Amino acid sequence: MTPDYVDIETLKFILYNVHQVEGLLEAEHFSEYDKTSLDLFLDSIKTFSDTALHPYIKEMDEKPSYFKDGNIHIHPQFKSILNTAGDLGIVGAIFDFEDGGMQLPSTVFQAAHFIMNAANNHVPGYFGLTSGSANLILSFGNQELKDTYVPNMLDLTWGGTMCLTEPQAGSSLSDVMTLATPTDNDYYQIKGQKIFISAGDHQFSNNFVHLVLARIKGAPAGTKGVSLFVVPKNRPTGNDKFTYNDAAIAGEFEKMGQKGYCTTHIVFGDNNDCRGWLLGEPNKGLSYMFQMMNEARISTGLMGASIASAAYYSSLRYANERPQGRKLNSSGQKNAEEEQTLIINHPDIKRLLFSQKATVEGSMSLILQTAYYLDKEMTSSSEEEKEKYHLLLEILTPIVKTYPAEQGIQSISNAVQILGGYGFCFDFMPQQYYRDIRIIALYEGTTGIQSLDLLGRKITMKKGKALELLAIEIQETIKNASKFDDLKPFANTLLENLSLVQKVIGTIMPHAMKGNYERFLADATVFMDFMGTIVIGWQWLKTAAVAKQTLADGNGNQPSAFYESKIHTMKFFYTYEISKTKGLAKTVMNNEELTITTSKDYF
Amino acid sequence: MTPDYVDIETLKFILYNVHQVEGLLEAEHFSEYDKTSLDLFLDSIKTFSDTALHPYIKEMDEKPSYFKDGNIHIHPQFKSILNTAGDLGIVGAIFDFEDGGMQLPSTVFQAAHFIMNAANNHVPGYFGLTSGSANLILSFGNQELKDTYVPNMLDLTWGGTMCLTEPQAGSSLSDVMTLATPTDNDYYQIKGQKIFISAGDHQFSNNFVHLVLARIKGAPAGTKGVSLFVVPKNRPTGNDKFTYNDAAIAGEFEKMGQKGYCTTHIVFGDNNDCRGWLLGEPNKGLSYMFQMMNEARISTGLMGASIASAAYYSSLRYANERPQGRKLNSSGQKNAEEEQTLIINHPDIKRLLFSQKATVEGSMSLILQTAYYLDKEMTSSSEEEKEKYHLLLEILTPIVKTYPAEQGIQSISNAVQILGGYGFCFDFMPQQYYRDIRIIALYEGTTGIQSLDLLGRKITMKKGKALELLAIEIQETIKNASKFDDLKPFANTLLENLSLVQKVIGTIMPHAMKGNYERFLADATVFMDFMGTIVIGWQWLKTAAVAKQTLADGNGNQPSAFYESKIHTMKFFYTYEISKTKGLAKTVMNNEELTITTSKDYF
Repeated sequence: MTPDYVDIETLKFILYNVHQVEGLLEAEHFSEYDKTSLDLFLDSIKTFSDTALHPYIKEMDEKPSYFKDGNIHIHPQFKSILNTAGDLGIVGAIFDFEDGGMQLPSTVFQAAHFIMNAANNHVPGYFGLTSGSANLILSFGNQELKDTYVPNMLDLTWGGTMCLTEPQAGSSLSDVMTLATPTDNDYYQIKGQKIFISAGDHQFSNNFVHLVLARIKGAPAGTKGVSLFVVPKNRPTGNDKFTYNDAAIAGEFEKMGQKGYCTTHIVFGDNNDCRGWLLGEPNKGLSYMFQMMNEARISTGLMGASIASAAYYSSLRYANERPQGRKLNSSGQKNAEEEQTLIINHPDIKRLLFSQKATVEGSMSLILQTAYYLDKEMTSSSEEEKEKYHLLLEILTPIVKTYPAEQGIQSISNAVQILGGYGFCFDFMPQQYYRDIRIIALYEGTTGIQSLDLLGRKITMKKGKALELLAIEIQETIKNASKFDDLKPFANTLLENLSLVQKVIGTIMPHAMKGNYERFLADATVFMDFMGTIVIGWQWLKTAAVAKQTLADGNGNQPSAFYESKIHTMKFFYTYEISKTKGLAKTVMNNEELTITTSKDYF
Repeated sequence: MTPDYVDIETLKFILYNVHQVEGLLEAEHFSEYDKTSLDLFLDSIKTFSDTALHPYIKEMDEKPSYFKDGNIHIHPQFKSILNTAGDLGIVGAIFDFEDGGMQLPSTVFQAAHFIMNAANNHVPGYFGLTSGSANLILSFGNQELKDTYVPNMLDLTWGGTMCLTEPQAGSSLSDVMTLATPTDNDYYQIKGQKIFISAGDHQFSNNFVHLVLARIKGAPAGTKGVSLFVVPKNRPTGNDKFTYNDAAIAGEFEKMGQKGYCTTHIVFGDNNDCRGWLLGEPNKGLSYMFQMMNEARISTGLMGASIASAAYYSSLRYANERPQGRKLNSSGQKNAEEEQTLIINHPDIKRLLFSQKATVEGSMSLILQTAYYLDKEMTSSSEEEKEKYHLLLEILTPIVKTYPAEQGIQSISNAVQILGGYGFCFDFMPQQYYRDIRIIALYEGTTGIQSLDLLGRKITMKKGKALELLAIEIQETIKNASKFDDLKPFANTLLENLSLVQKVIGTIMPHAMKGNYERFLADATVFMDFMGTIVIGWQWLKTAAVAKQTLADGNGNQPSAFYESKIHTMKFFYTYEISKTKGLAKTVMNNEELTITTSKDYF
């Protein structure tokens, strides 16, 4: 039977077989868990998603969150959703036991997160932002801040947010202007505006804990003068009493998608009575924020892949049920007397489906791969190991954020296409997913920003050490896959592509060495497309090799078609996607400089 | 100043300089016109678009057409729009004078159509469908049908529609089941349902003339048993009186875009009182319809390119006004003390803009190129010439329908991206264009169907004659461009790509010759992507050569940056797009057969 929004068997195969997440449980930190308890957790998330999330995805689009009389109103079902999610411990899933968390591996939690987002991508952001902001308080706050805020966030009685963007600054965080003026007390006076604040307010929480980037009066210009503050909507006055903290909701952004997930405009201190408590040290706000960034970016990419997953199964169901057209006979003709065939029997529909499957499962595998490195970084005992996993994470994070965001758009466009005219109509889901996913390439740093990060920072960092480590991981996969004759050609192709990466970098790096960074980075986004395709190619080869081994060993718990389909989809990816890398490499290495000094009159 | 939705100077440059439309006026058929009168017509359309169409595009999205009490209601502004369009003679623009038309060249009319669609893509379909259906009646109807229906359609007092799709058949017209039962009178009794009927009904026309594909009782199965009928909503009873013809509006399809352009569900003969009049001969309905199809498909591609045009200028305005971020210095650092730069100064934003410009203007040029062939086909005096232009049209039509539809999506996605988070919000236009354009790859034959048409029919027709003629046209452009040293490398690249087309076809044709048509056509859509890119590359080289010649002659009426920008954008297209053709060719020539016999269990 076609799954509703995610194939749980594929998710578990990637989790347990491809990435061997059980190996993580050997670490002291995860020693409370075994496969049975992990499965139990995933199953409870699946049940929650089936019953509480997925049934409301269409309604949340039809009845968007809205702003009225100074408050944001979200879909009424959130009352029950937030209650249940609080009970399930989702906010603290990866927190330590001592902080009230479940101390789960990130890899497993991201798998759970994938399920929830695929079920209803409008919802899990409310959990994720509360979790992220609670995590910042736990990591950098003093005991009082922890005690005051975290317990109520853990059970979702209170919501948490991240307030970065300002109207005049957008992605440029060095231009944050929200002002924090010191007082004689333990707090600062906060004044400024923040926009695009996801989950910024709603009727089902009686308090919100905003983590606000602001500049302490007199702080240096740029990113090195940005601090992080805890700014509650209602501040505690002792004895469990609260007073309004002059953090006003000024409006809701009306969006083309993810309409159930509110996006608010918050004005702090309009009446000069907004208090904020410094988190950690002054002027280190951005570095604190960035310690959360890898996870936030993995989660954002995950959101994209999971929406694409839901769209894939939606179009697959249609393709399996809709009769239309006929197969061609050997004269290239159709016989109109024959019954129509199901559209899934047309090669072009199969191409559209495999292309989706390749994007969805390839992205899923990369997401769990990076989450696995996150767990390894935390649990490794040696500094060298820790650094290895840290660097792997650094180089993969912009890719795992971007590939599902950009390719997810194409993937869902394919889902729309399969439904023909119905794909454009509100009666079917693909059009909603098509609108929902378009935000992913903008959240948490746009594709352009991720690409600058990849090429400008991650490729060059520590003299290319991160890329070197990634190449070692990829070569390991190539070695494993090469054991199987029919995987060998694809392993060889991946090896050629690794050399191509070196060639591309060797060609453009001299620009950076000559101080021409603009030239070096001009086609960073094309480089991202190139690298992303190769990295997903790596994940597919890894997946195919494990599938092949499972078939050879005969010890899989799925029908053989399951494993064969993984190998088949790997071949599809190499035939239809990896074929693009040479052209992309050529573009990155071009000598035309067409986007650098060009006159504005040319547009 | 940045245009609002279309650059009229570029449109005229492509019209008069690149395609030399004035040459058409030498034909007797167009002898009433000169450049001044053509300009006058285009200017009147621009004024109409500025004042009556563009101001309402956002409102038409916000207040969609809807169904209530058996009727469709469209935006109130349509009352005045339809009146003015009727006065301007838009419906009959290309009809003969004797039929009440303006006898304009198609090339000029498509230029006008581009302007109107770019201004407001929700509107011109109402004119176009009335025009298309009136044209069918003029071409194949008897005098009585012409006299009864056409005059009221010409001034848009009545609307016209094309009723092809049925719920069970979709794109498969051989499965049309609407039944036409002969009577003893001159009419047939019509019974059946049609869906996705654009402009099918509204409050501002007191009658609709539906052109309905139906099967005469006892007709053969498949396409060879399909006839075409004129089925009015209200039928004439003599003396200018009318009675309801049992053609009921059953609903409106709610869509994610083009919401002002209604899409209706019509039920014919539910009370057994729906009369239809046969157009032309029985069982020839589809061939009649297909005589209009080239124009309809050019117009559909045009709609895609024009929406992309509006989105391009929308994002260009933003890029020219929005300060954000800073340029990197020679140490790869930014100086936070500096003022922020306009985002148009970032190479990645320039890349996103050039990519849009390349798609919009390249598509515009191909659209006018095909319309030009349409005019040449009609006005050529020799049969050989006529056949030449007919075949060129045949091979280019699926491409001109598809390229702007598919690449237009990417183009508008780039516009969304330039606006960052605002791109996802209803306050700005790109998100609307992004939703609007998604239907273009589905209208008038999906991309899959166009691709089968291109590879399965057009490439092979008359032993490859159409492709041969196209290659001659392309070689002519290569020859002209090669005169200029700095265009020569690009001319050479285009020549290599022409050889690559031959190689690809030579590789896959044997499958067809062995009777394995499914294998031959399996990657038709990838082949379409490949061919489309090359054909747009041809148009860009042609444009660049004309721009270069104009600069050399020093006789252009635009500043030199205008012509330089065309050459620059050509280089951009070759560097960022033509670089993809080798990878696409490789995919088409693959030997994996991954989408043909695959088990359904693989999904």
